[in-house]
Amino acid sequence: MKNINAGLVGYGFMGKAHSNAFRQVNHFFDADAKINLTAICGRNKSSVQDAMDKFGFCSYETDYRNLIKRDDIDFIDVTAPSNAHMEIVMMATENKKHVFCEKPLGMNKQEAKEMLDSALKNKVKHQVGFNYRFAPAIRLAKKMIDEGKLGTIYHFRGLYLQDWIVDPSFPLVWRLDKKVCGSGANGDLNAHMIDLARYLVGEIDKVTGTSKTFIKSRPVVEHSTGLNAKSSHPDRFGEVTVDDTTLFLAHFSNGAVGSFEATRFATGRKNGMSFEINGSKGSIRFEFERMNELQYFCNEDDERLRGFRVIQVTDSFHEYAANWWPVGHVLGYEHTFVHEFFEFAQSITNDIPAIPDFHDGYMCNVILDCVDLSIKENTWINIG
Amino acid sequence: MKNINAGLVGYGFMGKAHSNAFRQVNHFFDADAKINLTAICGRNKSSVQDAMDKFGFCSYETDYRNLIKRDDIDFIDVTAPSNAHMEIVMMATENKKHVFCEKPLGMNKQEAKEMLDSALKNKVKHQVGFNYRFAPAIRLAKKMIDEGKLGTIYHFRGLYLQDWIVDPSFPLVWRLDKKVCGSGANGDLNAHMIDLARYLVGEIDKVTGTSKTFIKSRPVVEHSTGLNAKSSHPDRFGEVTVDDTTLFLAHFSNGAVGSFEATRFATGRKNGMSFEINGSKGSIRFEFERMNELQYFCNEDDERLRGFRVIQVTDSFHEYAANWWPVGHVLGYEHTFVHEFFEFAQSITNDIPAIPDFHDGYMCNVILDCVDLSIKENTWINIG
Amino acid sequence: MKNINAGLVGYGFMGKAHSNAFRQVNHFFDADAKINLTAICGRNKSSVQDAMDKFGFCSYETDYRNLIKRDDIDFIDVTAPSNAHMEIVMMATENKKHVFCEKPLGMNKQEAKEMLDSALKNKVKHQVGFNYRFAPAIRLAKKMIDEGKLGTIYHFRGLYLQDWIVDPSFPLVWRLDKKVCGSGANGDLNAHMIDLARYLVGEIDKVTGTSKTFIKSRPVVEHSTGLNAKSSHPDRFGEVTVDDTTLFLAHFSNGAVGSFEATRFATGRKNGMSFEINGSKGSIRFEFERMNELQYFCNEDDERLRGFRVIQVTDSFHEYAANWWPVGHVLGYEHTFVHEFFEFAQSITNDIPAIPDFHDGYMCNVILDCVDLSIKENTWINIG
Amino acid sequence: MKNINAGLVGYGFMGKAHSNAFRQVNHFFDADAKINLTAICGRNKSSVQDAMDKFGFCSYETDYRNLIKRDDIDFIDVTAPSNAHMEIVMMATENKKHVFCEKPLGMNKQEAKEMLDSALKNKVKHQVGFNYRFAPAIRLAKKMIDEGKLGTIYHFRGLYLQDWIVDPSFPLVWRLDKKVCGSGANGDLNAHMIDLARYLVGEIDKVTGTSKTFIKSRPVVEHSTGLNAKSSHPDRFGEVTVDDTTLFLAHFSNGAVGSFEATRFATGRKNGMSFEINGSKGSIRFEFERMNELQYFCNEDDERLRGFRVIQVTDSFHEYAANWWPVGHVLGYEHTFVHEFFEFAQSITNDIPAIPDFHDGYMCNVILDCVDLSIKENTWINIG
Repeated sequence: MKNINAGLVGYGFMGKAHSNAFRQVNHFFDADAKINLTAICGRNKSSVQDAMDKFGFCSYETDYRNLIKRDDIDFIDVTAPSNAHMEIVMMATENKKHVFCEKPLGMNKQEAKEMLDSALKNKVKHQVGFNYRFAPAIRLAKKMIDEGKLGTIYHFRGLYLQDWIVDPSFPLVWRLDKKVCGSGANGDLNAHMIDLARYLVGEIDKVTGTSKTFIKSRPVVEHSTGLNAKSSHPDRFGEVTVDDTTLFLAHFSNGAVGSFEATRFATGRKNGMSFEINGSKGSIRFEFERMNELQYFCNEDDERLRGFRVIQVTDSFHEYAANWWPVGHVLGYEHTFVHEFFEFAQSITNDIPAIPDFHDGYMCNVILDCVDLSIKENTWINIG
Repeated sequence: MKNINAGLVGYGFMGKAHSNAFRQVNHFFDADAKINLTAICGRNKSSVQDAMDKFGFCSYETDYRNLIKRDDIDFIDVTAPSNAHMEIVMMATENKKHVFCEKPLGMNKQEAKEMLDSALKNKVKHQVGFNYRFAPAIRLAKKMIDEGKLGTIYHFRGLYLQDWIVDPSFPLVWRLDKKVCGSGANGDLNAHMIDLARYLVGEIDKVTGTSKTFIKSRPVVEHSTGLNAKSSHPDRFGEVTVDDTTLFLAHFSNGAVGSFEATRFATGRKNGMSFEINGSKGSIRFEFERMNELQYFCNEDDERLRGFRVIQVTDSFHEYAANWWPVGHVLGYEHTFVHEFFEFAQSITNDIPAIPDFHDGYMCNVILDCVDLSIKENTWINIG
Repeated sequence: MKNINAGLVGYGFMGKAHSNAFRQVNHFFDADAKINLTAICGRNKSSVQDAMDKFGFCSYETDYRNLIKRDDIDFIDVTAPSNAHMEIVMMATENKKHVFCEKPLGMNKQEAKEMLDSALKNKVKHQVGFNYRFAPAIRLAKKMIDEGKLGTIYHFRGLYLQDWIVDPSFPLVWRLDKKVCGSGANGDLNAHMIDLARYLVGEIDKVTGTSKTFIKSRPVVEHSTGLNAKSSHPDRFGEVTVDDTTLFLAHFSNGAVGSFEATRFATGRKNGMSFEINGSKGSIRFEFERMNELQYFCNEDDERLRGFRVIQVTDSFHEYAANWWPVGHVLGYEHTFVHEFFEFAQSITNDIPAIPDFHDGYMCNVILDCVDLSIKENTWINIG
Repeated sequence: MKNINAGLVGYGFMGKAHSNAFRQVNHFFDADAKINLTAICGRNKSSVQDAMDKFGFCSYETDYRNLIKRDDIDFIDVTAPSNAHMEIVMMATENKKHVFCEKPLGMNKQEAKEMLDSALKNKVKHQVGFNYRFAPAIRLAKKMIDEGKLGTIYHFRGLYLQDWIVDPSFPLVWRLDKKVCGSGANGDLNAHMIDLARYLVGEIDKVTGTSKTFIKSRPVVEHSTGLNAKSSHPDRFGEVTVDDTTLFLAHFSNGAVGSFEATRFATGRKNGMSFEINGSKGSIRFEFERMNELQYFCNEDDERLRGFRVIQVTDSFHEYAANWWPVGHVLGYEHTFVHEFFEFAQSITNDIPAIPDFHDGYMCNVILDCVDLSIKENTWINIG
């Protein structure tokens, strides 16, 4: 069996999720190649060594340039903060490495375009980490829509609600610094909803939005290492340079109307990603926190017996489900990554396109930028 | 249009619910007769006068014997405590009055049998207050089962959970006195579940149960006037002579297996009446506190798209629904009584059988008695 | 006891709901006056006679002018289509009748302003039919917010989703004719959400929205008599002149951000009015179709034990609840009207302000107009 | 770091789940030893070789006796069918191997007693596969009860509902053969509920139950390989020798009353394990298919604001949660096994008792046997 050697950049929350996926793919899926945890890369030597041991990698690097130059690496997986995506991705593609990059692909559409062009020019496989596409319930939603089960789509209604920075004393971590991550709730959370909307409903024509930063300054923190940064300087404050919430309205090319909202200030909502799609023949609803379920209303049922069905998407005939456990034995968050990397590995091994690719990543950046522009100009912005 | 003159005995919670139904029937239903609130009866003169005014009755009596003897009364409605049912019902039937009686019909099956026999002999209409049968969702459940939508029924699982006496300082109201009400959670709550099980699944063959009184003595109360009795003697205690909870297992004649539980000690459950029925072709679930909804799993749906549907039973094609409001504009508890008395009035006017009748009331008493006997004898008891 | 004589204009769905409320108030509430169903008014003599009998009125009129002139009428209740509100309300106020008017108050803010001014000038009581304010769960929400339980409010997220015109063959009823009703989903449904947002969160500063008419022509209908119009001319089509859906974003004066959506094209959603409010200390959620429940997340609970609570707002200590049934015995749609008219009767009898009044109706019209203008001008519009 | 070498017997669904746990423990937990996948054992050579590769084991055996004799094996993990448990466990303990055994421990209490005695005598660690104890929500439930949050417990209400054999043409797999598995729904499903009841509520005093086999003969199958056996002989039928459903009532030593039901005939219920516990101060509810949630009603909350809370047990301060993903990023079925083997490894490494141990397994067998006896004798059976 062919081997695919992974070179992972980053060892935070996403690095952990990706590594797990690398390890799990071949135990649960009949992939045409074996993913090897060849090397992990991070700037801090002792931290990256610890991650190497914990995650099960064979080696480490402290400079991503060395990682990319290694002959034994087949693909580069980028989980570094957004502002580092472009330089890593560009060098990787130029060195003919396949590339997997976390979302949002670029800090803006220009960056995303460069990465897309380079990936195409260098004929490498390229995929973006829109992992929610790989939940079995989302796969089912996609099939239902493709089969026409919803008919003409009228509405997409997407929410991504979190509350992890409601406390004003929560410190100024890197995700609140525009220079590092480019955007706040919009790039972090709406990015997922935009991708799902494009996947399930289709292209967006125009948008208008608004955003707000409720808490404008926060205690600075020496070393921000993710969501759980605790060590802060309670007396020194710095400016929050990203949005706490961004909402926007949209019109789709197929005539549907959409609404999107991302926030980190929805007290009580932990990872409250949800959407509803209404069509002429039926509707579907999804909530990530009950990710094994898809709700479906079929307008063509006997009218006396119609109602939103709670489909538990764990039966063996649902995509990916047979690889895991018997019906009703539910999956979790990390499984979306295993599916995602199973597909990426298949695309490399069989030389077929990876999906969602850098074009999807680029389109997401385009729309995020248009939302930002609409906010700046107080009007609707046409996409593209 | 014909007039039907009501004579109501009792003005507590049930008297209030029944009076409301009398008033509402003709405003919402095209009944073949008009129900008049002719007379209300209670032992305390000033209280019954107040009730007369509040509920909208034309006259009052302080002795039910006088009420029954009045020529202008067409039917007697009995909402007095259980220990008063028999003497009122017997006199009413013997005086050729139609009778509506709250559940449980008798203090035991012997009483119920006498009442049933007298009603039959005197050829009056007789109905028992199993009001939950008249919720639109329950009507739909019945139709679905009759149409074979569930196939062969395997399981009935019924719960009636309340918590109003969890507090040990709650006083010794009449519902906790066996002499007055005959039974505790069993007669009060399981009675409803037994009736629904018989209505939806069929007759029961045998039962075995258990019961418990968790709090065995409580502060006595001078004048118990219902659930909300507050004035008590905190220093004087009396014995609780009824069950706080009764559970039982059952086998139905058609081969189904059943479980029943009634309790007043389920903290947080207010009027938690619910059941689930599983059949070879489908299942249904109902919770009273969301009484406008019926859940339905259809095993014959496309297997990928199966799930419990939450049917909102408010569309105009559902029984009784068109008489009220547009779809989605939900009904409440009291509507079950309006439906119940609409049907009772129709049965009187058109000389057709009332359902559920005293036979249903009798069968409920038979089963309640068998449950009690099974508890006493620690074994299974065959019904009938 | 004082008597208040009602003169009701209109006998459609709303006329039915209001009449029921008139009849029920005094049976369930200790009001300081008795509401009499004195007269009902409609243009079609035989229909209004039927309604008089069915609803229990003592007399009828076929011209609202005659109704208003009658000395025995204390208040005029306007449930006619929106385009008739102003002339009826103006004449009523000028004749010193108290006025209750269904929402939206005016066809636009100018009409609403005239009505408000006239009511103030003539010193009559004036109330607008924002009935959802009177659901016990909404009252509880209001109290919680007033007590500071949610802290600083960051988000309001309101939806009003229906699906009654998803079928393209559904005819061109009056609610789809701009001349008669002024607006589609926006005026009909967003009106309620705007009022609830103002009631619970506060005043709105600016809005921007979008709308769409998905089905632009429909079969004409000879006599449109409400939602359930069936008789249509399937071969003759007319233009739908109102919005099928309107969405808008908003900023509140207190810094909160809001989103609103109303649609009649959300397949499977029947009367899907819902909202969520997120504050620094807690969040609440409400869905009308489960109107007895209020969800509440308290951020100050023990952190291990936090979660959205499903409060069943039926205990006797909740507003209005003690007037009805024991805890857990749920209320329905129509009860909001009973509460609304109990309060209106109290305001007349005791000469205290009615709430929500024509100022609230006017503010709702102002915002609806601003939403329309924002759609026309593709930009944000400041309120007022 | 110490190494613990696993010897796994069986490579079916459970073998897959356990292997995954072995692999995952050290990537997510700071265990004091490393679990090695040293050897896997099964009778069919080519199948066990495939499993070795797929699951990641280093070697294989085709005879469990050889496995047990290997010096490089530290513990034996038994996932073979129930009728093979005893001989494997006895030889393992006698050879001083630590033992992990799937539930139910024995075919009956006598077998379980022998295994317990041998484990104690040989001073090995012994654990039984009651994996649901290791769901974070169940850990929270346990802590809450231990802290007194529920007060005096009155009710335990446990259900384990599945539907995988509702179809009469489903073949006669080994789980329907009493000789192989000892019991049907009772031993397979009630075993879990009995363990959870003992864990959370306490010891059971007496039980009475009933059971039923709805479909008494089924097509025989050549090689039964688990739940998904498809290849059958549709013309040859064999007898189903186990129960399709078993229900029982129970009294606990602490005064609580319990009900239990296990069935494989609850159409629409896939892995519907759920329970509710009501106490004087509060109640909790759990449904496995939404395993990240625990519902909690606190009777000591402000009475206006009480309601069942849906606690999402994913915050980092919940047991095991910090080892996985950020809050709201949900876990699945397999995680219970990772936690279970983390604890087992810790017990071996640090020479501390494993929990739940063979005594728990024995007590479960005792109660299962008493339920069976109660069914045979139609009466209550005292435990022990």
